[in-house]
Amino acid sequence: MYYLGIDLGGTNIAVGLVNEELALVCKDSLPTPATDPVAIADTMAVLCRRLLKKEGLSFDDVAYAGIACPGIVNRASGEVIYANNINFDHFPLAHLLCERMPLKAVYLENDANAAALGEAKAGGARGTKNSVMITLGTGVGGGIIIDGKVYMGFNCAGGELGHMVIQKDGRPCTCGRRGCFEAYSSATGLVRMTQEKMEARPDSLMHELVRRHGKVSGRTAFDAERAGDEAGAEVVAEYVSYLACGISNLINIFQPEALVIGGGVCNEKENLLNRLYPIVRREAYGGGRVPATELRIAELGNDAGIIGAACLGL
Amino acid sequence: MYYLGIDLGGTNIAVGLVNEELALVCKDSLPTPATDPVAIADTMAVLCRRLLKKEGLSFDDVAYAGIACPGIVNRASGEVIYANNINFDHFPLAHLLCERMPLKAVYLENDANAAALGEAKAGGARGTKNSVMITLGTGVGGGIIIDGKVYMGFNCAGGELGHMVIQKDGRPCTCGRRGCFEAYSSATGLVRMTQEKMEARPDSLMHELVRRHGKVSGRTAFDAERAGDEAGAEVVAEYVSYLACGISNLINIFQPEALVIGGGVCNEKENLLNRLYPIVRREAYGGGRVPATELRIAELGNDAGIIGAACLGL
Repeated sequence: MYYLGIDLGGTNIAVGLVNEELALVCKDSLPTPATDPVAIADTMAVLCRRLLKKEGLSFDDVAYAGIACPGIVNRASGEVIYANNINFDHFPLAHLLCERMPLKAVYLENDANAAALGEAKAGGARGTKNSVMITLGTGVGGGIIIDGKVYMGFNCAGGELGHMVIQKDGRPCTCGRRGCFEAYSSATGLVRMTQEKMEARPDSLMHELVRRHGKVSGRTAFDAERAGDEAGAEVVAEYVSYLACGISNLINIFQPEALVIGGGVCNEKENLLNRLYPIVRREAYGGGRVPATELRIAELGNDAGIIGAACLGL
Repeated sequence: MYYLGIDLGGTNIAVGLVNEELALVCKDSLPTPATDPVAIADTMAVLCRRLLKKEGLSFDDVAYAGIACPGIVNRASGEVIYANNINFDHFPLAHLLCERMPLKAVYLENDANAAALGEAKAGGARGTKNSVMITLGTGVGGGIIIDGKVYMGFNCAGGELGHMVIQKDGRPCTCGRRGCFEAYSSATGLVRMTQEKMEARPDSLMHELVRRHGKVSGRTAFDAERAGDEAGAEVVAEYVSYLACGISNLINIFQPEALVIGGGVCNEKENLLNRLYPIVRREAYGGGRVPATELRIAELGNDAGIIGAACLGL
């Protein structure tokens, strides 16, 4: 039996076929017709049929399809309640997909939650029952897995881990609050910290790196530090201190077996973990008296949404 | 059938007999022999027998006993791993209680978690499946109820909601971190804010109130504000802004049906809720698009631990 996993992004719709070992057999994608929700369902159906055909499979071989979608979704009704980037308002996406294909079931989940489920079932938190995932991208996405299932709160809007204030009255966040975890620990936050330090330190190697690569990125400060640049090291230390603060909060709240970190900043892998661990071990409650949460780097990369969506009916 | 609920505090051990309607039939207490864990088990047994005798019941009428205990407990093994105020180190409390009385089962839970369960089953969050409780006392206790059960993390140390940093590098907390929710929103935090404002404002009515009542308390600033004192109003506004910040964080993470607030500050009841709601409604994610978490005042008072303990085996 196979599972269809659909990841609806603001730019592309990606669909994957996942087998019972939760391995991604094949995937395909098309641009998202973002202004037309019905065309989104049409595009999803085109991609699903194309993949099945390519593998010589039929819908009889598919247990269900899962959709990972931005915004707030109603899992029970299969509706997208609201999505910031796409024109959804109480849109019955699961139902429309069922109309277009002979599927036994369609499940819908928020994309950050689906990614957390994917990492919990087949990625960095594989083998755990309780895990938390944060994705450090444009924002900070969050997903909570409890007893192997996505926790989303009574109104399906829970798990907004990026919108936990860690610096009251601090930096403005896109959500309207000030001082959110996301305002500091997202890739966007890191780029802004880097830019501010560059303005203050015209001597920094970071200026040369930016000329070479064309723009400030989440790598700039890390690369500069590796080359011995003091200003770069200061940016990395500041960024890591905020990231560790938010992670320690999540550990004190959830004490999950694993906390998975995803997003581009994770390309730093062990370099990032080795900086986080000493702070987190010191700040997490019960230190030394109880087994400690493991910090893990996400393993599924851009496929976390597809694979997580494909796990929704397990 | 009846349930025995035992609340082990630093000062007293309180035991209650709870009926199937989850009403407290009767209770009794004795001082905690804090330096001797075995004497604690003996005292619990004395109290249990005394209550049953008083009501003309036998152990056949008791389904189980539950213990609410400070510190970190291992629910599975029935051990108290560690408690700050009492001399426990991997102490098999549930086992010792079983040895002293013919009980069918003994359950053990952290006291803040048990209080959250009590409020969820028989108090302020009655009728909900997912709720979060914070108790504003010497510290800020926290409890998370998911699907009607206590969530405690893989190592039994979760739910330390008071040790979520809301002001990075802020006020020192007893846990070793800086800027914890507890450092601002506990009764202790409120008293300290009050004292600081009094030092800055020798003209404040709060000085007169403190002379009258003998000490600064969590009521001082609220009472002063009611009497028209500006400095008192400033303390209340500052306190509420920190409390609302932490509560908004917990809503963005959990989106529980109800968030229950317990502890002495809750004597302010509607006055407190009416101040919190406007801030929390503005800061909670998804505002207006999804049903909102209700803020509720705890209803069980000092009996929350007893009643919660009595609910542990439900």
